[in-house]
Amino acid sequence: MAGAAIAVTPEPPYYAVIFTSIRTPSDGGGYALMSDVMVVLAAAQPGFLGVDSAREEVGITVSYWRDLESISAWKRNAEHVVAQRTGRATWYECYSTRIAKVERDYSFQR
Amino acid sequence: MAGAAIAVTPEPPYYAVIFTSIRTPSDGGGYALMSDVMVVLAAAQPGFLGVDSAREEVGITVSYWRDLESISAWKRNAEHVVAQRTGRATWYECYSTRIAKVERDYSFQR
Repeated sequence: MAGAAIAVTPEPPYYAVIFTSIRTPSDGGGYALMSDVMVVLAAAQPGFLGVDSAREEVGITVSYWRDLESISAWKRNAEHVVAQRTGRATWYECYSTRIAKVERDYSFQR
Repeated sequence: MAGAAIAVTPEPPYYAVIFTSIRTPSDGGGYALMSDVMVVLAAAQPGFLGVDSAREEVGITVSYWRDLESISAWKRNAEHVVAQRTGRATWYECYSTRIAKVERDYSFQR
């Protein structure tokens, strides 16, 4: 648990990409590495604000972005395009991607 | 993995409530039960469209709703208010709640 943190984002409005997925039983070994690389790469993109991720039966990754243009650019990023293609070919049984405008947020900290 | 599924939602626009949290080390034993009850109760509310949830270090629950009025009504639901209060008192180290309007979505199914 040490070091765990949730994404800290600026005042709304900003955008969320909600990526929900179910994995295939076998991944050919490349999934964990590609997943880590994608997080590092996403964080380096213009307009990236933060990301949270968790997986049990269902995996949920929510990334936060300044605007729709930043999201479109990340979707077209060459390495990301390869990851998306491999995801459909190998890693994912199914997934949904939702683009949403965050209108309000509030936080609690003990 | 059998039986796992991700939320199926209608055509946008609709709303997402993105609840991201980190648990306290100890929960007094009531967390799992209250969490299950809240999902069942939420699903019975007017305007509820679906929910996905996963927890590792960070927990993410995304619930989907028809409109902001449905979200407000659920936030004020009496049992839910008790759960929110107990969450702040006992279960959560920290959390963020984000209200977001889903503008676009797309899905992949093997």
